Amino acid sequence: MHTEAPDLGSLAASLPAGALLTEPASMEAYRRDRANDPDAGIPLAVVLATSTEDVQAAVRFAATHGIPIVPRGAGSGLSGGSSAVDGCIVVSLDRMRAIAIDPATRMATVQPGAFNAEVKAAAAEHGLWYPPDPSSFEFCSIGGNVATNAGGLCCVKYGVTTDYVLGLTVVLADGRAVRLGGPRVKDVAGLSLTKLFVGSEGTLGVITEVILRLVPAQSPPATLVATFADLSQASDAVAAITRTTRPSMLEFMDRTTIAAVEDVTHMGLDRQAAAMLVVQFDDHPGDAATALEAVERLCTEHGAAECYVTSDREEGEALVAARRMAIPALERQGALLLEDVGVPIPRLRDLVLGIERIAAERDVTIAVIAHAGDGSTHPLLVLDPTDPEQQARARVAYGEVMDLAISLGGTITGEHGVGRLKQAWLADYLGDDVLELNERIKDALDPQHLFNPGAVFAHTARTAP
Amino acid sequence: MHTEAPDLGSLAASLPAGALLTEPASMEAYRRDRANDPDAGIPLAVVLATSTEDVQAAVRFAATHGIPIVPRGAGSGLSGGSSAVDGCIVVSLDRMRAIAIDPATRMATVQPGAFNAEVKAAAAEHGLWYPPDPSSFEFCSIGGNVATNAGGLCCVKYGVTTDYVLGLTVVLADGRAVRLGGPRVKDVAGLSLTKLFVGSEGTLGVITEVILRLVPAQSPPATLVATFADLSQASDAVAAITRTTRPSMLEFMDRTTIAAVEDVTHMGLDRQAAAMLVVQFDDHPGDAATALEAVERLCTEHGAAECYVTSDREEGEALVAARRMAIPALERQGALLLEDVGVPIPRLRDLVLGIERIAAERDVTIAVIAHAGDGSTHPLLVLDPTDPEQQARARVAYGEVMDLAISLGGTITGEHGVGRLKQAWLADYLGDDVLELNERIKDALDPQHLFNPGAVFAHTARTAP
Repeated sequence: MHTEAPDLGSLAASLPAGALLTEPASMEAYRRDRANDPDAGIPLAVVLATSTEDVQAAVRFAATHGIPIVPRGAGSGLSGGSSAVDGCIVVSLDRMRAIAIDPATRMATVQPGAFNAEVKAAAAEHGLWYPPDPSSFEFCSIGGNVATNAGGLCCVKYGVTTDYVLGLTVVLADGRAVRLGGPRVKDVAGLSLTKLFVGSEGTLGVITEVILRLVPAQSPPATLVATFADLSQASDAVAAITRTTRPSMLEFMDRTTIAAVEDVTHMGLDRQAAAMLVVQFDDHPGDAATALEAVERLCTEHGAAECYVTSDREEGEALVAARRMAIPALERQGALLLEDVGVPIPRLRDLVLGIERIAAERDVTIAVIAHAGDGSTHPLLVLDPTDPEQQARARVAYGEVMDLAISLGGTITGEHGVGRLKQAWLADYLGDDVLELNERIKDALDPQHLFNPGAVFAHTARTAP
Repeated sequence: MHTEAPDLGSLAASLPAGALLTEPASMEAYRRDRANDPDAGIPLAVVLATSTEDVQAAVRFAATHGIPIVPRGAGSGLSGGSSAVDGCIVVSLDRMRAIAIDPATRMATVQPGAFNAEVKAAAAEHGLWYPPDPSSFEFCSIGGNVATNAGGLCCVKYGVTTDYVLGLTVVLADGRAVRLGGPRVKDVAGLSLTKLFVGSEGTLGVITEVILRLVPAQSPPATLVATFADLSQASDAVAAITRTTRPSMLEFMDRTTIAAVEDVTHMGLDRQAAAMLVVQFDDHPGDAATALEAVERLCTEHGAAECYVTSDREEGEALVAARRMAIPALERQGALLLEDVGVPIPRLRDLVLGIERIAAERDVTIAVIAHAGDGSTHPLLVLDPTDPEQQARARVAYGEVMDLAISLGGTITGEHGVGRLKQAWLADYLGDDVLELNERIKDALDPQHLFNPGAVFAHTARTAP
């Protein structure tokens, strides 16, 4: 296939033994992320980097030969942001997993392959907490979290990944490594390049180290679960809750999701409900119990069928675990095409009702889970992989959901990233002027378009292998 | 002076009546910011913009004629970031002051000329809070806050300006206006351009609207004041406090500052103390009173001469006001040259002792105030404006303080910005590679170097008027 491929000998020589994979069978596991992109390409090679220097060696080789680089963390991405392209070098960071916690500055210095959960655990040993918590936190990497500016459940109160990134080490397109920012809470010397690289999805450089801000451990939250017979009621309750209280979590599951989770957990969730909210409060002005009473009242006022409150930590965790289980539970019912659209809270009602309408019109199942407290939703298209007609309808629905979000003042991706799956919709969302501004930054930092071609930015001729 | 200046008639015609100033006397008030840069230039014109369109008209005119643009908010900057350059057009945003609060999304849409205090007040009407609080909050603009990524006293717990900026409207170098980000807590579609413009000090575009995230009103804090006979003890106490608790404010004043404030307030501050800490706690895991007891114990263990605790709100505010009064109080004693260096907390001791040494060696008075809880300090050089020799020594000391901060792993500017006063030190701090990366972004977005030449980036020949 790669008859004109360059000699990889010099690259192999600059890497530790075993760090360069070129056999198709050994590279297979590095071709796709969790989006299972059917168009994933065949890499020329996979570099299992163990250091910033290994990444530099790969990038220098790629730059010399005009070979695309696809950076890759744990492969848990949901937008195809680390799908291989034909003839590329996949730079996998999954062997770079060191974590160092400095309790004196409340910061963590982390290599990109470390899992989010591993950072949380290391911080917890010092009574500290790294808040961002994608549902995949047990198997997603910090590097991927930074590359996508990942969110999660706690973001409604605690913000997203970028809010915790103080410094980065990045390998640039010419192979130089630079340190951006550092262990300083305040630093305004020069442009905010650290923040520019957060969320850049591997298109501007390869992140090889991250300095994260940590906070003191979270207080044990109290939890409320409420069910509604009607999507509108549940959405309106969300708007009322976020307007008057400050939950540390406010999650939403629709009927399809509730049923899928109940199938797996048998924990007694109400299959009749149109929607269920899971609300948590940790430290709250006044106190958490008072806040939960207020939320219970709001849910009741908005027609909740049932409310259940607990301050038992394990019970609360079980309810949150049920929410986190939504994607794996739905994966049992078919192949998933994951959406990630977000809207301002007051438009959440229009979004979920619109998605219900699209699902009916296109005759596809769309389960909806949402980090409702920040307007971030994950409509999940549940597909029969053997039904090409259904898949074609689903792809139409996928686009229609994004169009709907845009029309409601929302975004096509709140926390998963544009990747390759949403690239075609980015221009519609950003508009020509902002897209062009993005492209100018890309051209300035990666003039050969070496990094992750086809993700975020269109895979132009210049970048073809 | 401007014999070759272009005809301003077409610019005047595209602006509202009275929006274009060209008389030297009327432009005088727009030549300098609070840094009182002696090298401030003489503008060709001042545009008093009332809308994004006015700013576009000014930028289009400037781009056509190759005239530099110096954007300007309230003129409260401390690094000379809005000093005029000869022959420039100053675009003043001080007439653009609209503020709209949306309690449903807890967001504020603000024009750049609105004061920080005005945004706080508008938010408070809805029980909401905009946290970032530079000491100048009563007379600094949100546009300037965003342009410098301003900090303040609450940042030790609540973060800096960028943590609250969700969207921007920006006029680009070719006169186009773009909207970046928007009223969405989570949005990862495209590069993080919003965050790139935060802290860009008017070098990439002119910010004409800001969308800010608000949070529920802060709980009334409890306050502790501790005095120390020794700078080392006070610094070590800061490190111990930030390691084990989470104050909502942790401020430091040295002896010179205490005396200056006491001269003005006569509130009975201890002039014998080498340093004083002001510590506040609002909501705290457990509760604020318990946290304050722990801090009192820590201060005593570190040799505090005296500790005083109050949960009385007015008394706490008076103590904070004393801290905020430091700069005006010191201004009564001479002309100030303001530093803004920051270090990781464990190096705070080395920084304050090193500054004391530099002051002695250079025979200049350097008063130190600090947002100690995040390692951000403001050494204030107090100068006799009639003593040129002292001023020369002070300029040496000014550089030595930055060199010291760099050597301690710190930054040359934590929250004031590079502006023109610190431009010469930026390369030392960032290093050549990161500086070049900054320049590539600048070139990509402002190829003519039209915006704020000489601030952050060297005033190169290409940008000369």
